[in-house]
Amino acid sequence: MIIAMKHGVAREEALHFAESLEKQGVKVNFSEGATRTVLGLVGDTTAIDQEALQASRLVEKVIRVQEPYKRANRMFHPDGTKIVLLPANGKKAKIGGGTFAVIAGPCSVESREQIISIAEEVKKAGGAFLRGGAFKPRTSPYSFQGLGCEGLDLILEAKKETGLPIVTELMEISQLELFEEVDVIQVGARNMQNFNLLKELGRCRKPILLKRGMASTMTELLMAAEYIMSGGNERVILCERGIRAFDSFTRNVLDLALIPALKKKTHLPVIVDPSHATGIAWMVPAMSKAAIAAGADGIIVEVHNDPEHALCDGEQSITPDSFAELMSVLRKYAELEGKTI
Amino acid sequence: MIIAMKHGVAREEALHFAESLEKQGVKVNFSEGATRTVLGLVGDTTAIDQEALQASRLVEKVIRVQEPYKRANRMFHPDGTKIVLLPANGKKAKIGGGTFAVIAGPCSVESREQIISIAEEVKKAGGAFLRGGAFKPRTSPYSFQGLGCEGLDLILEAKKETGLPIVTELMEISQLELFEEVDVIQVGARNMQNFNLLKELGRCRKPILLKRGMASTMTELLMAAEYIMSGGNERVILCERGIRAFDSFTRNVLDLALIPALKKKTHLPVIVDPSHATGIAWMVPAMSKAAIAAGADGIIVEVHNDPEHALCDGEQSITPDSFAELMSVLRKYAELEGKTI
Amino acid sequence: MIIAMKHGVAREEALHFAESLEKQGVKVNFSEGATRTVLGLVGDTTAIDQEALQASRLVEKVIRVQEPYKRANRMFHPDGTKIVLLPANGKKAKIGGGTFAVIAGPCSVESREQIISIAEEVKKAGGAFLRGGAFKPRTSPYSFQGLGCEGLDLILEAKKETGLPIVTELMEISQLELFEEVDVIQVGARNMQNFNLLKELGRCRKPILLKRGMASTMTELLMAAEYIMSGGNERVILCERGIRAFDSFTRNVLDLALIPALKKKTHLPVIVDPSHATGIAWMVPAMSKAAIAAGADGIIVEVHNDPEHALCDGEQSITPDSFAELMSVLRKYAELEGKTI
Amino acid sequence: MIIAMKHGVAREEALHFAESLEKQGVKVNFSEGATRTVLGLVGDTTAIDQEALQASRLVEKVIRVQEPYKRANRMFHPDGTKIVLLPANGKKAKIGGGTFAVIAGPCSVESREQIISIAEEVKKAGGAFLRGGAFKPRTSPYSFQGLGCEGLDLILEAKKETGLPIVTELMEISQLELFEEVDVIQVGARNMQNFNLLKELGRCRKPILLKRGMASTMTELLMAAEYIMSGGNERVILCERGIRAFDSFTRNVLDLALIPALKKKTHLPVIVDPSHATGIAWMVPAMSKAAIAAGADGIIVEVHNDPEHALCDGEQSITPDSFAELMSVLRKYAELEGKTI
Repeated sequence: MIIAMKHGVAREEALHFAESLEKQGVKVNFSEGATRTVLGLVGDTTAIDQEALQASRLVEKVIRVQEPYKRANRMFHPDGTKIVLLPANGKKAKIGGGTFAVIAGPCSVESREQIISIAEEVKKAGGAFLRGGAFKPRTSPYSFQGLGCEGLDLILEAKKETGLPIVTELMEISQLELFEEVDVIQVGARNMQNFNLLKELGRCRKPILLKRGMASTMTELLMAAEYIMSGGNERVILCERGIRAFDSFTRNVLDLALIPALKKKTHLPVIVDPSHATGIAWMVPAMSKAAIAAGADGIIVEVHNDPEHALCDGEQSITPDSFAELMSVLRKYAELEGKTI
Repeated sequence: MIIAMKHGVAREEALHFAESLEKQGVKVNFSEGATRTVLGLVGDTTAIDQEALQASRLVEKVIRVQEPYKRANRMFHPDGTKIVLLPANGKKAKIGGGTFAVIAGPCSVESREQIISIAEEVKKAGGAFLRGGAFKPRTSPYSFQGLGCEGLDLILEAKKETGLPIVTELMEISQLELFEEVDVIQVGARNMQNFNLLKELGRCRKPILLKRGMASTMTELLMAAEYIMSGGNERVILCERGIRAFDSFTRNVLDLALIPALKKKTHLPVIVDPSHATGIAWMVPAMSKAAIAAGADGIIVEVHNDPEHALCDGEQSITPDSFAELMSVLRKYAELEGKTI
Repeated sequence: MIIAMKHGVAREEALHFAESLEKQGVKVNFSEGATRTVLGLVGDTTAIDQEALQASRLVEKVIRVQEPYKRANRMFHPDGTKIVLLPANGKKAKIGGGTFAVIAGPCSVESREQIISIAEEVKKAGGAFLRGGAFKPRTSPYSFQGLGCEGLDLILEAKKETGLPIVTELMEISQLELFEEVDVIQVGARNMQNFNLLKELGRCRKPILLKRGMASTMTELLMAAEYIMSGGNERVILCERGIRAFDSFTRNVLDLALIPALKKKTHLPVIVDPSHATGIAWMVPAMSKAAIAAGADGIIVEVHNDPEHALCDGEQSITPDSFAELMSVLRKYAELEGKTI
Repeated sequence: MIIAMKHGVAREEALHFAESLEKQGVKVNFSEGATRTVLGLVGDTTAIDQEALQASRLVEKVIRVQEPYKRANRMFHPDGTKIVLLPANGKKAKIGGGTFAVIAGPCSVESREQIISIAEEVKKAGGAFLRGGAFKPRTSPYSFQGLGCEGLDLILEAKKETGLPIVTELMEISQLELFEEVDVIQVGARNMQNFNLLKELGRCRKPILLKRGMASTMTELLMAAEYIMSGGNERVILCERGIRAFDSFTRNVLDLALIPALKKKTHLPVIVDPSHATGIAWMVPAMSKAAIAAGADGIIVEVHNDPEHALCDGEQSITPDSFAELMSVLRKYAELEGKTI
């Protein structure tokens, strides 16, 4: 961290200020220039509050050179994290470390028949995980809110039938006890900064699929992961799902440059959600290919056997046939990227 | 709701589609044009899922004419809502209905001395409510997270000392039982779409101060209010606190045009948070005046007796002296607007 | 400017790098810390290319402390600039320095009758300038593009009739010769970074009303002013007219915090365009009041005698009656702000 | 176009309104519903001003179903446009129609040696076009503004030496006469809505590379192309170069979903600029691969033999070696996409 003091700050005052910083556990290099004093902080500055410094009447500018996250930081963990799941009765599934993970399934679980039929199609086409929502965050209180516990039971049944590990969204701490047999817990974009929830997930031992908030910066996403990791759970999967911008031809703007940026900054695996990013089924294949080409470790994609009558987000779901076709295309791209699906 | 069918959809199919809509409880006006059929839906369309319709291969475009919110809608509740608080040992405080409510206090409660001293200054200058955070949502797990329950006790003590009703943020459902003596419960911007929390707050009987999410549309803000209201709690105060945009000279962009827009669409009171919107103390007075001129029913502003050593957000806090000065200026503006402070 | 070198850069290399900077005309303070070297640049750094430095493999981060603009910078010109116009046959008109300037008129000049009738209404209500477009930047080549030279003649006629100085938009360098009798030349938001146009306007001797681009930062706006000023024309009026964001309840988001920010950074007068910012006539009064409360030196507002049949932007134009009413309200706000209208 | 009239508009009034629309050359389907009248406009509505309609006190909402562009619309031109160049002394170069065009070269021409050396490297690696700026749009008037006419001469010399067709940016109408030997004229993002320039380019016979503005919607980009095409020049190449958003880890946000969207809406070729989009050299390869996977018809990429000392945008330029490596990777991706480089 580098602190440029204001012009005209007296030597005494600057030294006093530097001392107060050293009390916070860092070493301060004191450099007096012709027009201003510059302080360089050495050591672990993650706990130093940049905003508080900025509030000081002595300070012109504060610049963080070191990233504010530690456990998520690739600097301290050069090898990529690889997450391996061993569901009791299922096949081993991986995310990261040379595996391109395809997570597929309906937006929400609607019936036993629906989820099992889609699960079978996903498995047949080579998908590695089954997704499906039981508790659904919906903008309107009058929209279908998911089947709840019943939905959870049904997707667990689909897991038993197919052996596919499952990914499903948790909306609230109290639901955690219901998620015992869930393989990967999803945190939705709207909960990315629900800090109490993140802390709680830091205490559990399941992989967490953490979606980027609609207007979250890369650093905020990594700090959200850090919340989970600082609690002891280091198995976090990051997910780009589109950010909010000014145009409306897609629901969100898929920010694919985030992928190489994250791969440089963190060791955590990174996947892409082309379905929510675009909100349009016919865009999903192109964006899935672009995701793998950009370096993603996987995708999470909505597949529905009857998109037209889906109870939510039908517009962005592809059919099982399109999914199977997409899988065969993605295999070729994975090969180019030296990854296995 | 108006549905433009695609070119070339057969009459039969369109009629069948219209029937399926009527089963959802609306009346459908069927209009066959030269090139396409247009359906007009009459009745309560709040529960009709626009996205599901858009997914249909028969549909070109769906346009919602009626707002998707009912209880928050001014159309069904022409008079503005006025929220009156009668704290046991305090003075009556109001928001809405001709009162310009000033809520002031520190970002977070730091000590008994700090909160009581600031509370007294706020009261002396004419502030109507005391704000102060006990549970703090912080971007970093390594930052000060608030004093928690102790902080809550301290702000309740300040309430007792000064008689000012208090506003403080709740971060999680399980904290609700601790908030019995809190007068107004704040929902932070990051929790605006924490739907489970909103539902729970719909069951409580305290006024809720609902902050707009950083990238939330006006409609989403109103739908979040609708979540609370549909649970039975109609005492919701909306708060504009800045949205995220591309420039960084302020922390967020204060969207003051939201004020007249909300006043037209909803009967709920609307306040402005100039402190979080700008993140810069010297901008707070100008933006407070602009808020009242734009038609706001109040402001929530950070006041700290020692901004330089504040444990959070010192950069945006004004001193008690500046606050007193601001109050005297705001009184003149309130007069022009026909409001009382 | 402060340059944090990368970890592990050799002393030799850093010294060599510092030397190369000194050749660009600045003094370099060389400060070796425990983990990295930090260079502080002293002197005029406006011509130093931050991006070029950032490209160096030796550099971790570059931070500009000094603003990149000089002539527009309040630091070197503490008093606010006041622009005074003395139209041959008209009354003296001012912008800045305690005067709140109201510029009003139709989006585009449509006919002799229209522009003269509106001009008279503007004058009667106390507007200081007449606005009206002859050359119109329209998104579609199929929309009305303004009356062109004929429109310019008509607005000049309205100037003669009423004595009001006129403000009108120039779209291209070659039109400059037609603007001899125009009092203030407007540069539209889409031309804010048309650098060749800006340079040309730097050579003319008329005040320039420079609108902020739809996605321009404050610094970019000031650099655009700097282009004009560095050519010798220091009479630039800045105009906030709304930025592009994700919501659509208004056409743009009026960024009123820009006003106090600009007043701090620059000595140039700053006005607000509530008509283009919101795109909605009934929001104009509230946003005009908010503009004056935020510290603006004026507004530019669309007034049309028949908004419903206006050839462009009728939706955002207020009627002459509403304008007269707004003026009487603004006078009260101006008084509070110690300004004269 | 569909117009929902307000509740309670009298039949007479609505009919009168419909008549006034028919005078603008469209047929109106008049449909009276239980609560409101809906008008459906049939025919060419491109010249009908949506905003003007919206201004009417009779109108609730106006929805455009038909796109506002005609010549750029794929509906009326189902086959993709293929642009073929036959430079006098060079090799044939194509964009669109199964060819993936790689345009490469320095941000700005700096010297004879520089541009010829880079041109030779580009050619050797298989690039199809040479890019290089002579007139540079720079944010600061104090930054290097390009070599101007001299730069143009030098890049034309590089064309002679290598036979590569050249792409270079025009900033102003008056420069057009200097561009006789230029193969493709580039319109920069800041000039995308410089309508006078677009009209002038509509009269010339060279292909135009039109970059999307920093905050332009897809429709606005297509309307800018329509300006050129409506003047008679149908050879327009669209270019996505990143939009402005709230995060700063990249300079802009590369909006790759625009590619499939544009391919659906228009027959014009679409390329991607990964250099300006990210502003970071090491991201260029990943984003180039993602561009081709998303369906782009080419890329325009900055290559510099000495990025560290480049006079502009060095940070985002890759070296000739990296470029050659990128080309060999892109060939494999092109194969998967059924395209030739």
